Amino acid sequence: MGSDTDLTTMVGAADVLSSFGVPNEVRVLSAHRAPARVAEYAGRAQERGVKVIIAGAGMAAHLAGAIAANSPLPVIGVPLNPSAGGLGGIDALLSTVQMPNGVPVATVGIDAAKNAGHLAARILAAFDPALAAKIALHREATAAEVISKDARLKEMGVDAFLAERGETGG
Amino acid sequence: MGSDTDLTTMVGAADVLSSFGVPNEVRVLSAHRAPARVAEYAGRAQERGVKVIIAGAGMAAHLAGAIAANSPLPVIGVPLNPSAGGLGGIDALLSTVQMPNGVPVATVGIDAAKNAGHLAARILAAFDPALAAKIALHREATAAEVISKDARLKEMGVDAFLAERGETGG
Amino acid sequence: MGSDTDLTTMVGAADVLSSFGVPNEVRVLSAHRAPARVAEYAGRAQERGVKVIIAGAGMAAHLAGAIAANSPLPVIGVPLNPSAGGLGGIDALLSTVQMPNGVPVATVGIDAAKNAGHLAARILAAFDPALAAKIALHREATAAEVISKDARLKEMGVDAFLAERGETGG
Amino acid sequence: MGSDTDLTTMVGAADVLSSFGVPNEVRVLSAHRAPARVAEYAGRAQERGVKVIIAGAGMAAHLAGAIAANSPLPVIGVPLNPSAGGLGGIDALLSTVQMPNGVPVATVGIDAAKNAGHLAARILAAFDPALAAKIALHREATAAEVISKDARLKEMGVDAFLAERGETGG
Amino acid sequence: MGSDTDLTTMVGAADVLSSFGVPNEVRVLSAHRAPARVAEYAGRAQERGVKVIIAGAGMAAHLAGAIAANSPLPVIGVPLNPSAGGLGGIDALLSTVQMPNGVPVATVGIDAAKNAGHLAARILAAFDPALAAKIALHREATAAEVISKDARLKEMGVDAFLAERGETGG
Amino acid sequence: MGSDTDLTTMVGAADVLSSFGVPNEVRVLSAHRAPARVAEYAGRAQERGVKVIIAGAGMAAHLAGAIAANSPLPVIGVPLNPSAGGLGGIDALLSTVQMPNGVPVATVGIDAAKNAGHLAARILAAFDPALAAKIALHREATAAEVISKDARLKEMGVDAFLAERGETGG
Amino acid sequence: MGSDTDLTTMVGAADVLSSFGVPNEVRVLSAHRAPARVAEYAGRAQERGVKVIIAGAGMAAHLAGAIAANSPLPVIGVPLNPSAGGLGGIDALLSTVQMPNGVPVATVGIDAAKNAGHLAARILAAFDPALAAKIALHREATAAEVISKDARLKEMGVDAFLAERGETGG
Amino acid sequence: MGSDTDLTTMVGAADVLSSFGVPNEVRVLSAHRAPARVAEYAGRAQERGVKVIIAGAGMAAHLAGAIAANSPLPVIGVPLNPSAGGLGGIDALLSTVQMPNGVPVATVGIDAAKNAGHLAARILAAFDPALAAKIALHREATAAEVISKDARLKEMGVDAFLAERGETGG
Repeated sequence: MGSDTDLTTMVGAADVLSSFGVPNEVRVLSAHRAPARVAEYAGRAQERGVKVIIAGAGMAAHLAGAIAANSPLPVIGVPLNPSAGGLGGIDALLSTVQMPNGVPVATVGIDAAKNAGHLAARILAAFDPALAAKIALHREATAAEVISKDARLKEMGVDAFLAERGETGG
Repeated sequence: MGSDTDLTTMVGAADVLSSFGVPNEVRVLSAHRAPARVAEYAGRAQERGVKVIIAGAGMAAHLAGAIAANSPLPVIGVPLNPSAGGLGGIDALLSTVQMPNGVPVATVGIDAAKNAGHLAARILAAFDPALAAKIALHREATAAEVISKDARLKEMGVDAFLAERGETGG
Repeated sequence: MGSDTDLTTMVGAADVLSSFGVPNEVRVLSAHRAPARVAEYAGRAQERGVKVIIAGAGMAAHLAGAIAANSPLPVIGVPLNPSAGGLGGIDALLSTVQMPNGVPVATVGIDAAKNAGHLAARILAAFDPALAAKIALHREATAAEVISKDARLKEMGVDAFLAERGETGG
Repeated sequence: MGSDTDLTTMVGAADVLSSFGVPNEVRVLSAHRAPARVAEYAGRAQERGVKVIIAGAGMAAHLAGAIAANSPLPVIGVPLNPSAGGLGGIDALLSTVQMPNGVPVATVGIDAAKNAGHLAARILAAFDPALAAKIALHREATAAEVISKDARLKEMGVDAFLAERGETGG
Repeated sequence: MGSDTDLTTMVGAADVLSSFGVPNEVRVLSAHRAPARVAEYAGRAQERGVKVIIAGAGMAAHLAGAIAANSPLPVIGVPLNPSAGGLGGIDALLSTVQMPNGVPVATVGIDAAKNAGHLAARILAAFDPALAAKIALHREATAAEVISKDARLKEMGVDAFLAERGETGG
Repeated sequence: MGSDTDLTTMVGAADVLSSFGVPNEVRVLSAHRAPARVAEYAGRAQERGVKVIIAGAGMAAHLAGAIAANSPLPVIGVPLNPSAGGLGGIDALLSTVQMPNGVPVATVGIDAAKNAGHLAARILAAFDPALAAKIALHREATAAEVISKDARLKEMGVDAFLAERGETGG
Repeated sequence: MGSDTDLTTMVGAADVLSSFGVPNEVRVLSAHRAPARVAEYAGRAQERGVKVIIAGAGMAAHLAGAIAANSPLPVIGVPLNPSAGGLGGIDALLSTVQMPNGVPVATVGIDAAKNAGHLAARILAAFDPALAAKIALHREATAAEVISKDARLKEMGVDAFLAERGETGG
Repeated sequence: MGSDTDLTTMVGAADVLSSFGVPNEVRVLSAHRAPARVAEYAGRAQERGVKVIIAGAGMAAHLAGAIAANSPLPVIGVPLNPSAGGLGGIDALLSTVQMPNGVPVATVGIDAAKNAGHLAARILAAFDPALAAKIALHREATAAEVISKDARLKEMGVDAFLAERGETGG
């Protein structure tokens, strides 16, 4: 990530990967404040055995693009919406996704660090049956949870369901 | 892709993959007009040996998301800007990238089908040294082309350079 | 709705329908996390006697479109603006309304679940004189309320009117 | 529609309805230039036996809302993007969809007059089995067309398929 | 205004007019919930001696346009940004300003009810030298206040100036 | 207007005023390239007997605001969308309408120079019964034209109506 | 700056300059409420020895443009996002950056007053080796800080790093 | 510039500088396709005697930011709107202007390469009285041209003025 202030959001990517047993490392690398380090890190990632790089940054978010420019690996970009910003992250989204031909960034939604983790896991699982099995289980569990909530809502009724969550309809 | 009218743009993804020697198939599948086929295709892709799926669609672009919902494979989404549209593709971009947690779409830029091909190639190359070598060559060639144009521009001067392309500065 | 976290907003649709005596059911169905259930539910709704389906979802909101793709019934879409989002719901609005030809979604305003209930009631009332009469009464009451507030404001004056509501002008 | 200059687009709604055998009338009614006529038309539509009203307008598109304010019928709004405009129809979309509570407009996509016809047909078909059967046939034909194009593309290959349409990939 | 919930903001227009000694009336009139009253009020305003009408509304803000459609008077529109909305008032701005030819609305900024009062005062003052004199005095006072703050800031220094306001720089 | 390249559009305002017999003058004044002239013109307009000023400018459109800052008269702003621009005039709209308190600009739609003429005529007519009568006639003629087109469309049918205009439905 | 309410943000520019030992003055000057003072200040700045002017304003932000129109000096514009505004500062950004040819404003990010200070320092340092040396030191310190945080994060691990800041991952 | 396809626009910056007699060089440097060259060029520019760098790029426009990250010089960014793009350059604008603290880019308007030249000239002129004199002359000539056009328009009348340009009002 581009700044340690992004860590609270970006740790979500690492958490998802760890929950699937995928080893990962979390780094602070700034395309604008320490560009040589970004180029060096990106340039050596492949030979270090890294398979996918996730990069999160806000505003004029260049980090993912800078890494994709310096590495042949697939790079996932997470556009961040800093709490003080007023553009809702659209600046970071466009700065991340609208890359020139030949230097793609696999962009996920605004602040979607967890989904970046899921995307990285899908990429690795395409070549790792054991990981694919774990993901399949997770997908089944997610579907089951939706179905179970639907059943529970039907059983309890809307008012009781909301009351259990401490809310009222509006 | 969601409609054969998108083929002119989307064939760019296939062209890039073919140029790297990556086998690929081009399909017309509509999440809204023939949804069962999308679910069936996505649900069976992994067992057929597909490693990455690229989906391009315009407007309320649901195709990439529908495939990601029905397959554990990495899905690359290309937001398309139909020539008749007036929103410039921002509708397709947001419909493609803002996916819920657990169902990521690796989104590239608007109409960036070629970059989707490059991204797919990077994903495959992370596990295929021969492909990685081809991509490395291509990246070097691309860099060399920029450097050569820079040198040529310096040598010829701006006016001659533009004249050669049949343009004048403005 | 696509997630039970949307229930607090979406219950407004059910409340409006219930207030007109229209029977309705509230379901949790996710186009992305449990897509087969959505297809099954939508595919069987008509034969179960459902006349209108209201679907609410946020971000890359595909639920209404997925239902319209799998059912011939009129589908009303409610674009939701999750509290954590920064785009104000414009992503969900475009993902819901910009549907391809032949698969329309009757889209209401952002977070306008109650209005979705009113729209569903209008659709049913076009073929149900008793319901039409109830809606006519409600419309008259709404108009009367505006007129009464106007009269009250004229009578009390702005300061007293605001004071009664515990506010001051700004 | 609000202006006869919108007729070229809006006739698409009538064409779709006529193709399903649904009787319809096409009117020019301006919420801003002849507002009393709009109120009168809307106020009497229900007693004339009208079941659904489709209204198309551009820019600060008030027509659909003005009709919904003066009639209890379901009103479908088509936001139009006049060719001279530069906002791509986002002004008309927001002016049509963001209606206050109790006065909903069933909004379709920008310039999506045909989809308004499809939506009106779906509403009527919910209470008309013969119409429902026609719509079911149309939906099957649409799905079959996508599947057939997919098959044809597979058979011919991309280049021949594009050549047949007089295009080349880009 | 379209709803009494807008009164807190819209009273600013009345306050500015009253501060210049301009008689004014504050009304609640809804273009969507009680449209006949709007048409009636607008249609009779000129004969009642009204010179300018200020209309404020949010979301698909039709009130100002509906009044301009029913009255030959100059109409000032205030696009409102309801606190619950997420689009920041851009919907109301476009719904108010993008009027068709022949039916203009003099639009001020989002939530700028006070500025609507100032604009109405300027319009009246163009034909009322006594009012023009009051406005001239107010403009001089406003300019003097800026100049005085500038002088005070220079004298006190930034830190003391901020401290006096109970703030610190950031 | 800020540049003579805007004259083709802005002459629409003068044409409307002239059609109502309202004397007017057309000037080229640039807030950015000749600011002292703008201040001088605006500062002396009231004493020269000017009642309303219409200002049109594109991009960071400051002209209307600069005039409103230097004159107590009502100022109408026309945001222009230069043909070479890609933002559709939203930059000029926001630069014109979002004025600070006390310095309002009566903003009309993008490129709506004719509507600026209509708005100026309405302002003058509020104090000029003869002009008010001309505007009333024009409003009646406009309404009659819509009603006549509606009648003609009903009589001819859609196809003949479009054929007469040399168009076909789409 | 255009208003003393902007001082809390704009003092950041002065703080950065002061931290580099660059003399500066902070002024309140309003393009709309006291335009003659702006013209006078801008017109005399060069002869007073000023080298760069930083101007911050919100909404229809004309201040930077008005200064650039009245002075040949480089002008840096800071678009401000007032806390009460809902457009996130995009209005101020477009009003500041989209200047006509010949009258440029060097625009920095929304609310980026500190960056305006850094930009002014870079401009001055291009002609002042001592200042350039201070900036070089600052750039090295900034890079070192990123590298040190990266090292510390690797050493402590994510959980401990977040705990030290009183946060937990989300 | 980031690509030689941008040369037609970007040569405008060089033309303005050359017209003031300011030596300049035009280079093709891509932050994404040849990043090491950008870092090397930027890192050595100061020691080569460069005073200001102008960088133009489109879409996710990182070039200006990448140069500002690798050089202490003032960097001017020109957001470009490629003719094939549909977002009007807002992506490039946000990618260029929303830079993090400490790494500012002096951003000019979309496609405003000439204005980048003017801004660079102003920066140099702040320390070069001879250049300042040339700029002063140019500013006077520009103001005189506006005033002359205004006089000519008054003299000729609108119709003759437009006719001379081969246009008619609309």
